[in-house]
Amino acid sequence: MIGSVHPLANHNQGKSEVNMIDLAIPKQMPAFLIIRLCRSGIALKSFSFIIETTWERPTSAPGTPKSPISQMNSLPTVNGFHSSGSLSHHLETSHMALRKTNSDPQSPGVGSPTRRQSKESTITINCVTFPHPDTMPEQQLLKRDDWSYCDYFWADRKETQSNSTITGFEIILVKQLKGKQMQKEMAEFIRERIKIEEDYAKNLAKLAQSPLAGMEEGTLGESWTQVKKSLADEADVHLKFSSKLQSEVEKPLLSFRENLKKDMKKFDHHISDLRKQLSARYVAVEKARKALAERQKDLEFKIQQVENKSTNKTEEDIKKARRKSTQAGDDLTRCVDLYNQSQSKWFEEMVTTTLELERLEVERIEMIRQHLCQYTQLRHETDMFNQSTIEPVDKLLQKVEPSNDRELWVKEHKTGHIRPVDMEL
Amino acid sequence: MIGSVHPLANHNQGKSEVNMIDLAIPKQMPAFLIIRLCRSGIALKSFSFIIETTWERPTSAPGTPKSPISQMNSLPTVNGFHSSGSLSHHLETSHMALRKTNSDPQSPGVGSPTRRQSKESTITINCVTFPHPDTMPEQQLLKRDDWSYCDYFWADRKETQSNSTITGFEIILVKQLKGKQMQKEMAEFIRERIKIEEDYAKNLAKLAQSPLAGMEEGTLGESWTQVKKSLADEADVHLKFSSKLQSEVEKPLLSFRENLKKDMKKFDHHISDLRKQLSARYVAVEKARKALAERQKDLEFKIQQVENKSTNKTEEDIKKARRKSTQAGDDLTRCVDLYNQSQSKWFEEMVTTTLELERLEVERIEMIRQHLCQYTQLRHETDMFNQSTIEPVDKLLQKVEPSNDRELWVKEHKTGHIRPVDMEL
Repeated sequence: MIGSVHPLANHNQGKSEVNMIDLAIPKQMPAFLIIRLCRSGIALKSFSFIIETTWERPTSAPGTPKSPISQMNSLPTVNGFHSSGSLSHHLETSHMALRKTNSDPQSPGVGSPTRRQSKESTITINCVTFPHPDTMPEQQLLKRDDWSYCDYFWADRKETQSNSTITGFEIILVKQLKGKQMQKEMAEFIRERIKIEEDYAKNLAKLAQSPLAGMEEGTLGESWTQVKKSLADEADVHLKFSSKLQSEVEKPLLSFRENLKKDMKKFDHHISDLRKQLSARYVAVEKARKALAERQKDLEFKIQQVENKSTNKTEEDIKKARRKSTQAGDDLTRCVDLYNQSQSKWFEEMVTTTLELERLEVERIEMIRQHLCQYTQLRHETDMFNQSTIEPVDKLLQKVEPSNDRELWVKEHKTGHIRPVDMEL
Repeated sequence: MIGSVHPLANHNQGKSEVNMIDLAIPKQMPAFLIIRLCRSGIALKSFSFIIETTWERPTSAPGTPKSPISQMNSLPTVNGFHSSGSLSHHLETSHMALRKTNSDPQSPGVGSPTRRQSKESTITINCVTFPHPDTMPEQQLLKRDDWSYCDYFWADRKETQSNSTITGFEIILVKQLKGKQMQKEMAEFIRERIKIEEDYAKNLAKLAQSPLAGMEEGTLGESWTQVKKSLADEADVHLKFSSKLQSEVEKPLLSFRENLKKDMKKFDHHISDLRKQLSARYVAVEKARKALAERQKDLEFKIQQVENKSTNKTEEDIKKARRKSTQAGDDLTRCVDLYNQSQSKWFEEMVTTTLELERLEVERIEMIRQHLCQYTQLRHETDMFNQSTIEPVDKLLQKVEPSNDRELWVKEHKTGHIRPVDMEL
């Protein structure tokens, strides 16, 4: 009966090829999204994966859940909601609106969360519409077994301390900024190490220049001179270590993604603008829904009056009310379309951008790993070079020969080898 | 004729078994000196060598010089003296007295050096009596091919700057004190190194405690934590290095022969006392020689007078003069004996002590060599231990896995995996 009040229901079904729900299910992910992912620089690996995922047919039967989403579905429900898990948590803390399929379209406005016991087909939380947990069709993750950012940050989170709400996307952005901070702090750490090495090298070099025991002679003197030379070499090894640490570890760590903060701000604005648009369109939907409800109420009231012949309302009045109701229905349909377009756009950008952020994080970790490897490599080399500075000392120490040194010294300092003899008379 | 004036010439020859000249020639070195060398702690090697040398018969004929002393003899002579070499140098710069065998016993006193063209059997320089270069019997070195202290420091040396004379023995003492100074300066050098290592270790340890990038998570976070742990280990390696440097290199170098200066002073006093005694006895000899000359002159004058019958001198007068002359001859003989005993004692102590100093120098060089080896050993170990501190970092870096880290982080921070769907009417 109410179905007849919505003449555009079929029209809406006809557009389902580009609907959000189609985009959200990987096996039906449209080509334009894949192309967009490519354009936005998603690594080939990710791309290939998406291709596979997009057209992959689920191999597990509905009764044998394997993916996290299936596990979530298998949790016990309390009062129609999951008793645990992030979604049920958010059902209790965020602004939400439940919607019954083919039932009374009236719903509380934004900012007045309520719960309903009856089965609903969708639930709108903070202006984002999710399938209702109880009637939800099984969703395959976009990137199964991959713990991809694009799969786990659809809901918002209420911060316990500030009492404010943070979006899933913002949580990823915070992670990115923290990653950048870690990278900066590692560079700082390496900088400290460089300073320590420079000081050490400076002190060793200074000591190597010391005149101490410089008068030692012979083979022992040569060994001692080599001790100092080797110390100078050792100082040099540490100076080179510090210099290479700077050019090959500190600088790359410091300069890697200098514009990350700016880039993140852009991403942040981009996604939050889309969320704002979505909110605005949600408000429009709710307004149109309210208007339609009023028109419907008015129409039904007038039909009742005509049927009861309780008033002198003419068929003309009913026609007029029906036209206004149809117009309000059209308005709502248009608003819902616009809302869904907005949500679709936000969804696309969320997938694209979170995959990009995921790629950036992989790159960051790889970059840091690579430069820490470079650090250990330089440390290894430093030890090896240090070893080699000592070798000449060892060689000369093996040649130390007290008798040679005595010969050298005696030759230089002898006063006379003619021994005294008895004086004669 | 003059020979008859010296009735004790034969007596002197009879005592030649214990004469200085016998002691000075190795093949006739007396047993008591060898025993004394043993008692004073001369190494068995030196002892054996002396035994061999003592009884060794010279194999080279006088015409085929091989030892340094033979080479010295083959140098061209100018005015009866060698034109170069330390001995001829000292002939020109030191107080000396030449003595003709069986010729006029008169000689200039101490402090009035002269040269004579005729062949002399001995030459006394600074109260020490040497064989005359022109009439010198071939001397074998006490320790041939060994450049031993006991063979090359018999003469004194005039210092060009201070215009003072330094004995050969004092030159060896100066070498000993310089050696002690070198040893002390090496310890000082090592002390500086210890300080540098301590500072370095302190700075590394402090950096290892830094909270920088401590919030890094997952496998990368583990690697980073290990970077810090390894740095702490590295600091520890350097601290241990400095500690071992102190106990195994610096302290032994510093404490080795703490009483050396005192010991050298004792040696110095001992030998210089013997030289003073020798000088005093030389003065006595010269005085006795002068007295004898006067007595001889008086006797000969009186004999002349009796023969010429120019005076009324009686045979009694001649007898009296002859008795006085004989008495003066006995006095001189006694003085020369005492002088030779003194010189013999000095010679013995010179050989004993210089061999001891030579042994000390060998020990010093060996000791320093050993501790520099210990230094390089500790350096090697430090490098090896340092290498091993880096290994755990390398291992963990190999395990860095961005996807694992993402899984960990996503599990902790995910907000919701349920994707949005189209809002329905």
